[in-house]
Amino acid sequence: MRKTLYIVTSNRGKLTELSSLALEYGIELVPTDVPKLEVQSDELEVIASYAALTALLMVRKPLIVEDSGLFIEVLNGFPGSMSSYFYKKLGVKGILKLMEGLDRRDAYFKSVIAYASLDTGVKVFTGVVYGSIAYEVRGTGGFGFDPIFIPKGYEKTFAEMSVDEKNRVSHRGLAFKKFIEWFNNNF
Amino acid sequence: MRKTLYIVTSNRGKLTELSSLALEYGIELVPTDVPKLEVQSDELEVIASYAALTALLMVRKPLIVEDSGLFIEVLNGFPGSMSSYFYKKLGVKGILKLMEGLDRRDAYFKSVIAYASLDTGVKVFTGVVYGSIAYEVRGTGGFGFDPIFIPKGYEKTFAEMSVDEKNRVSHRGLAFKKFIEWFNNNF
Repeated sequence: MRKTLYIVTSNRGKLTELSSLALEYGIELVPTDVPKLEVQSDELEVIASYAALTALLMVRKPLIVEDSGLFIEVLNGFPGSMSSYFYKKLGVKGILKLMEGLDRRDAYFKSVIAYASLDTGVKVFTGVVYGSIAYEVRGTGGFGFDPIFIPKGYEKTFAEMSVDEKNRVSHRGLAFKKFIEWFNNNF
Repeated sequence: MRKTLYIVTSNRGKLTELSSLALEYGIELVPTDVPKLEVQSDELEVIASYAALTALLMVRKPLIVEDSGLFIEVLNGFPGSMSSYFYKKLGVKGILKLMEGLDRRDAYFKSVIAYASLDTGVKVFTGVVYGSIAYEVRGTGGFGFDPIFIPKGYEKTFAEMSVDEKNRVSHRGLAFKKFIEWFNNNF
């Protein structure tokens, strides 16, 4: 019998990637429309934990929340935990403008998955992928800042990869694998 | 007898301005060190209200929270409700970089004061001041984005004004005046 888990997100791209990952492990993710309370914090762990905990109080069933961000070294970690806000306002072009004339392009994507259940409380799993910021937009896959992020060891941006290919190397894929190992060992 | 009100902030510049305003009306602001819970939202009203409400649960005495942001038209309202986060990461120079080559410089500062007490719940008061983004940093007063904001009808940036002068025209001064009128009529 397939296990099910609730997920709190309004981001379709995120849902596509996580659902695909989950299915590989025999888990079905079921979106729930409870509001996602997001606090302001430098730490994705804090944001995801709060969101999972407040959602749990409403859903009262095991669920996950995923939060991620792009941390650019020369921009002091910006946009970091505010990535989706910045993306909504100024998109990838805003980042390219902030990076104009800068040759230090090191960056990493970080993903945090917070699992919450009435039995376990909140557990957090992280994944990080290092890479660099492209000089121009490339590719149409993925979502968010994918068209300007080139993971280390690759020539392509995340947006030039298929969902499966991206999931094998991405921060989100890594965090999800850590979560699922723990989950399958315990439930 | 002087009335006292608690204030939740870790921003010294904000405290200086608000204390000075409050004293004109015979009110003493007393900082409290309870944590300020800040949610992510486009709306300063939402952020300030949540913060005031959660602080009230701990302080259990009348208090205010002030939240403000700089909304730049050509940047689609950025940095807006994320102004202090952006300021910490990239400062005024980050804004000037995003504005490079742009001649549309219209912007406004908005301030929201949330008052919370066990008797009244949460009440919100807003102040807005229109102006433009300077082409370079000017002045050493104020805090945050003050050195690049020129209020309409003035030649100076906020950072080139004294505390009193700024308080007479600023978004924070306007919001506080609205609050204090209501407060003095009701208490």
